[in-house]
Amino acid sequence: MSVQKNVNVSRPLDALGKSLNSQVLIKLKGGREFRGVLKSFDMHMNLVLNDAEELENGESSRRLGVVLIRGDNIVYISPG
Amino acid sequence: MSVQKNVNVSRPLDALGKSLNSQVLIKLKGGREFRGVLKSFDMHMNLVLNDAEELENGESSRRLGVVLIRGDNIVYISPG
Amino acid sequence: MSVQKNVNVSRPLDALGKSLNSQVLIKLKGGREFRGVLKSFDMHMNLVLNDAEELENGESSRRLGVVLIRGDNIVYISPG
Amino acid sequence: MSVQKNVNVSRPLDALGKSLNSQVLIKLKGGREFRGVLKSFDMHMNLVLNDAEELENGESSRRLGVVLIRGDNIVYISPG
Amino acid sequence: MSVQKNVNVSRPLDALGKSLNSQVLIKLKGGREFRGVLKSFDMHMNLVLNDAEELENGESSRRLGVVLIRGDNIVYISPG
Amino acid sequence: MSVQKNVNVSRPLDALGKSLNSQVLIKLKGGREFRGVLKSFDMHMNLVLNDAEELENGESSRRLGVVLIRGDNIVYISPG
Amino acid sequence: MSVQKNVNVSRPLDALGKSLNSQVLIKLKGGREFRGVLKSFDMHMNLVLNDAEELENGESSRRLGVVLIRGDNIVYISPG
Repeated sequence: MSVQKNVNVSRPLDALGKSLNSQVLIKLKGGREFRGVLKSFDMHMNLVLNDAEELENGESSRRLGVVLIRGDNIVYISPG
Repeated sequence: MSVQKNVNVSRPLDALGKSLNSQVLIKLKGGREFRGVLKSFDMHMNLVLNDAEELENGESSRRLGVVLIRGDNIVYISPG
Repeated sequence: MSVQKNVNVSRPLDALGKSLNSQVLIKLKGGREFRGVLKSFDMHMNLVLNDAEELENGESSRRLGVVLIRGDNIVYISPG
Repeated sequence: MSVQKNVNVSRPLDALGKSLNSQVLIKLKGGREFRGVLKSFDMHMNLVLNDAEELENGESSRRLGVVLIRGDNIVYISPG
Repeated sequence: MSVQKNVNVSRPLDALGKSLNSQVLIKLKGGREFRGVLKSFDMHMNLVLNDAEELENGESSRRLGVVLIRGDNIVYISPG
Repeated sequence: MSVQKNVNVSRPLDALGKSLNSQVLIKLKGGREFRGVLKSFDMHMNLVLNDAEELENGESSRRLGVVLIRGDNIVYISPG
Repeated sequence: MSVQKNVNVSRPLDALGKSLNSQVLIKLKGGREFRGVLKSFDMHMNLVLNDAEELENGESSRRLGVVLIRGDNIVYISPG
């Protein structure tokens, strides 16, 4: 498939693999933000964070520990 | 598939299996929250809770007993 | 598939089978609620209620008799 | 599939078959309501009504005659 | 499939075939309305109108000539 | 499939082929409008415009040059 | 398939391949904008940007470095 031919770089979800066991920032569709250590993900972008906290204005508003986030809520994922 | 190769850790929905018969907190897209004992789930994240209650501001607002929640409403699931 | 292995309990939609011919409470995405006797359902959570009524603040606001509810509107289903 | 085993009653869309050539009430996601004679439907719940009218507060607000309603708009369908 | 057995009448999209080359009224999810001559459609309800105009309060507000409308916007289609 | 039998006219996306290398007007779901020269499209209605500009009240508000528009945002496409 | 026959030009996602390692502007559904260097994408339009920043009124409001954007949020992608 020609999309794949053009993309001889790694694919987007492969980039997530590099963030396993590292801290990531997750932005959700309603504006909600989470920070935690990425433990797993699947092709739907469902993902599990450890040591997760929900953020408001960049500050921790709720400590969740382990959390499974449903992928269809996600806007973006960024290391850090 | 390369996503799977990177993910030699468990997948997100496998993490749910560890919460079977334990209490979980469920956050839904409209902000609604539920707490109950996870009895089953499927790949769409449809799930059944026992001893479930709906929460408002962290307090129980409605006792539901058994409840089947449709997976596409879910934002996140967290033990506790 | 590993999701299935973890779930050696019944699956969520199987739990609906136990409510056939019993009264259920249905919560829809816009907040609408229905109560009626569950007569059938399918894998999309489309379902048919008999003796159904729409509720407002827990009180009957409209008697519908038989009603087919489209599954994608559903937030949760609970016996009672 | 176990969903089917539990459902040895008819399935939800089969119930629609019983309403063919009869008058039905259709509630749509935005609150819009239609009443008309059900002439056909498919597995997406797309359906055709004859002698259809759009209702406001239960009163006819627009006569449409034949109308094809796209299934993904539907909240519920009820005889009458 | 039992849905098909019940529906020994024509299916909803077949009804659209009868409106080819005739004027139809299209209602979209945001409330927008179009009137034009139906030239083609597909199973997603994508459709092409000729001599199309957008309507506001039933009056022409914009002449579009040929227009391709994406099916997932459609609430209903009615001859006339 | 009977839909295809009725449609012995061209299908809606075929009509887009006639607009390749011509100017088109694109209306998006939020009300946003674009005008540009259609260079390619696919079955999801993803499309590429050249010499594209975003419009407000029919006037150019932003020149984008080449732009790839994701198909699921589209309400309608019209030549001109 | 006739769509492909008409499109003997490149397909929309192929055009993204030309922007690999170049700066792109991404507009999301809620109005959010990002600018960064496109490093990868897939057929869902999931994409990874390097040196990414979120923009407000065209000015940088947040530096994200590497960011994975989920494709279903995207309205358009434009070089620059």
